[in-house]
Amino acid sequence: MAAGSARAAHTGALAILDPDQTDLLRELDRVFTGWGRAAGAREILPPPMYPVSDLEKFDVYTNFPHLALVAAPLDLTDGPPKPADGRFTAADLQEPRLGLPHATCFGAYLFFEGAELGEDTLVTLVNRCFRNEDHYVPLRRLTSFQMREIVALGSYEHTQRVLADFTERITAFGAALGLGLDREAAADPFFENDGARALMSRLSPVKYEFQAGDLAIASVNTHRNFFGERCRIRLTDAPGHAFTSCVAFGLERWLAVLTDAHGSATRALEAVREAAPRIP
Amino acid sequence: MAAGSARAAHTGALAILDPDQTDLLRELDRVFTGWGRAAGAREILPPPMYPVSDLEKFDVYTNFPHLALVAAPLDLTDGPPKPADGRFTAADLQEPRLGLPHATCFGAYLFFEGAELGEDTLVTLVNRCFRNEDHYVPLRRLTSFQMREIVALGSYEHTQRVLADFTERITAFGAALGLGLDREAAADPFFENDGARALMSRLSPVKYEFQAGDLAIASVNTHRNFFGERCRIRLTDAPGHAFTSCVAFGLERWLAVLTDAHGSATRALEAVREAAPRIP
Repeated sequence: MAAGSARAAHTGALAILDPDQTDLLRELDRVFTGWGRAAGAREILPPPMYPVSDLEKFDVYTNFPHLALVAAPLDLTDGPPKPADGRFTAADLQEPRLGLPHATCFGAYLFFEGAELGEDTLVTLVNRCFRNEDHYVPLRRLTSFQMREIVALGSYEHTQRVLADFTERITAFGAALGLGLDREAAADPFFENDGARALMSRLSPVKYEFQAGDLAIASVNTHRNFFGERCRIRLTDAPGHAFTSCVAFGLERWLAVLTDAHGSATRALEAVREAAPRIP
Repeated sequence: MAAGSARAAHTGALAILDPDQTDLLRELDRVFTGWGRAAGAREILPPPMYPVSDLEKFDVYTNFPHLALVAAPLDLTDGPPKPADGRFTAADLQEPRLGLPHATCFGAYLFFEGAELGEDTLVTLVNRCFRNEDHYVPLRRLTSFQMREIVALGSYEHTQRVLADFTERITAFGAALGLGLDREAAADPFFENDGARALMSRLSPVKYEFQAGDLAIASVNTHRNFFGERCRIRLTDAPGHAFTSCVAFGLERWLAVLTDAHGSATRALEAVREAAPRIP
């Protein structure tokens, strides 16, 4: 079972996790999902690909064009094109209509698109996310990785209460695992081109990252009603659009920092199993 | 939580599963993974995207060019391109070097690429798979879906024993769930352009599908040493390349068929929980 490590070394951008890494990642995901369920979330399951027209609603191609990956079928008009040196040419493709998401929570807003919420709502979901980065670091900066999220939709107070509760849990879990997590305010390019929201985010941070060293392994994010508006999600008991917030966990990053901190994925798994029950 | 059904109806090619569907899919996956673990498998975790040069090793672009989806970053040389009518043009892209897999088991062969196996080996893995189809049917024929596999590598006898054992389990589980599953021999285009193996597969079927009505929801597949050769996987105790076989479960298809058979995802979940412990 030693095959994976050799491979991981030569393809830093994409990883096949070995059995010990897989067990650890799955256990971490169970812990975070458990927190979500304990807080009242049910799980939904999004696809790792959306119509470009759906991702466009979130200004993805305006605010994150450098991160975007899009997909298309091959153009077979003149027979199947052959890749050369591991690549096709753009002319080998049909028109790209499919976008690969760079964050998980899009699935939650699209799930509730056009809905009216009768009460404050919490969902959890995990997805494969994709980012075209300018450099890659094994497990820490991958082309494709997994992000577990807990997404709150409803009143502004609800979205903030969820972030406060999860901030406590993440901080306590980090401490129990021997990670010195720094909570740092961060900018969120989602609101770059939105005057009122951009001003608001300069006055009051909308994103806090939990950093192990210089690596953000979790974040809590306030979107005000940006996604509610874009997906026309309304509230029965209040005018305007739903407020949303999300808590995000980069699963391979947790795997990387815990393996470093505990010496192996197996020992990190023991540490997670010991720490998890102590978190309220 | 009624939002999902409206959405599922208008995007048949991609689905966001609602909470009841998600619980059922996760339970089915736990059952199939449990069978794999009970048979000695450990789990590995593959990415939903590979370098085109990796998928090329499996003749994907020769034998399945119509199913293939490839991905690329946007070309930002002249500023970020804008999609129009929900699509980019091929000229908006950089060279596509990334391929989206249409089956899960590729990850297993790539994980063991170049390895020498000291013993018969069994792994299980689940992945998002992608297929460019000429038509879509909600949950039954999707652009992106989930496939759980159990993959055997080692001696030919080992690969066949695993298929025989899983054939029994799948048949018994189908019967316990009230599904009349037909076991049908099927062609496997993997071996279309491989003279000896193509001949072999005409003499002795290499793929059996388990069909509920006209929908294949699982399959058992013999690859002889095709993947072993392509990924240079050797055996300590025998000359030549490893033999491989795989058992595959199309998770959304099980969800579709069981929901139809039991009237709702919730009732299907009860049926699965009742049936699973009775399978050896």
